[in-house]
Amino acid sequence: MRYRRIPDETVRRLPVYLRSLLFTSEQGQENISSQNLADLVGVNAWQIRKDFSFFGDFGTRGVGYSVEKLAAQIKKILKIAAVQKAALVGVGNIGSAVLAYSDFGKYNLDIIVAFDVAPGKIGRKIENVVVQDISNLWKLRKQKIKFGIIAVPRQAAQDTTDKLVKVGIKGILNFSPCHLAVPKKVKVITIDIAMDLARLPYYIPAF
Amino acid sequence: MRYRRIPDETVRRLPVYLRSLLFTSEQGQENISSQNLADLVGVNAWQIRKDFSFFGDFGTRGVGYSVEKLAAQIKKILKIAAVQKAALVGVGNIGSAVLAYSDFGKYNLDIIVAFDVAPGKIGRKIENVVVQDISNLWKLRKQKIKFGIIAVPRQAAQDTTDKLVKVGIKGILNFSPCHLAVPKKVKVITIDIAMDLARLPYYIPAF
Repeated sequence: MRYRRIPDETVRRLPVYLRSLLFTSEQGQENISSQNLADLVGVNAWQIRKDFSFFGDFGTRGVGYSVEKLAAQIKKILKIAAVQKAALVGVGNIGSAVLAYSDFGKYNLDIIVAFDVAPGKIGRKIENVVVQDISNLWKLRKQKIKFGIIAVPRQAAQDTTDKLVKVGIKGILNFSPCHLAVPKKVKVITIDIAMDLARLPYYIPAF
Repeated sequence: MRYRRIPDETVRRLPVYLRSLLFTSEQGQENISSQNLADLVGVNAWQIRKDFSFFGDFGTRGVGYSVEKLAAQIKKILKIAAVQKAALVGVGNIGSAVLAYSDFGKYNLDIIVAFDVAPGKIGRKIENVVVQDISNLWKLRKQKIKFGIIAVPRQAAQDTTDKLVKVGIKGILNFSPCHLAVPKKVKVITIDIAMDLARLPYYIPAF
């Protein structure tokens, strides 16, 4: 399979499909048509078929997709068939909310360690994760953790990034409101809540 | 200007440009080249010029863009030149973090009211916003609020959406992990933290 050729937008939709499949599975449904999945996800059925066509043929005509098999396939494609461990840096408002977020487990994601610089936070336990001093970041390499979540103030974001890259982090989910410079092999996905809210008005006809 | 023809990806980048321009402005810089802006944002300079070309010509050859003018232009395009008021529904971990988020003001976004169903939360003041009982949602129409942020559990998300649409909300920022069905005129942007983390491993070469 040539992963490289797959459009980013398709990769962006795969977890969305997975989310609906897991929901469907929870409801006890065994098979699902592309139209049915399309309605749940809010995209066109042809889009779903096109997205899946990049990875081979999953469905059976007339029967649709096996919910369980399709979910397993998507997990495999996304490389979350086995548990992926992640580290969080910055246990402020956003970082704490991320730790308390209950949905990661469904996607085989496990935040197993958190770091901060504030002495008042170090040693505190949030949702089974003990907050450690940032000076312990080097341990991530030994623990073979490849994914980091950055939720520090902007001024500290690039420095935190550099440190994470240095200890072997390959993928970063960034909540800090700035662009992070990283080596080519490292992937950054940024979530900026203000920027997502800021583009909403654009879509609304004059009022 | 034909807003309709502009690619979603361009609209997605506009706030990112704005974020860097506001930062540049804070640093006291008056002009910026597309290359300079490109470095800050982490995209190619040609991409920036192409994105701006949809809206006319902003730059001056040799001098670059006026930081202040360009920021004002982008705000105008995004329809955030004047303050846009928003309402938050659901004051759990994520909702509270959103209320505490300090960056909205920069983009002329103002969360002026929050709602919840939990008696223990109603009446509490978080970051200058008093949490109200969800039964007061009808007041949003009178206040001419057009933007809503949904941070409720999945089971309550569609019902909350329907209620918001009913009182005149036209744009929704959705933190609930599900697709929301809305009339065509209503725009939904969904932030699902787990899904963004879930697509990170895809990009990482085998390890």
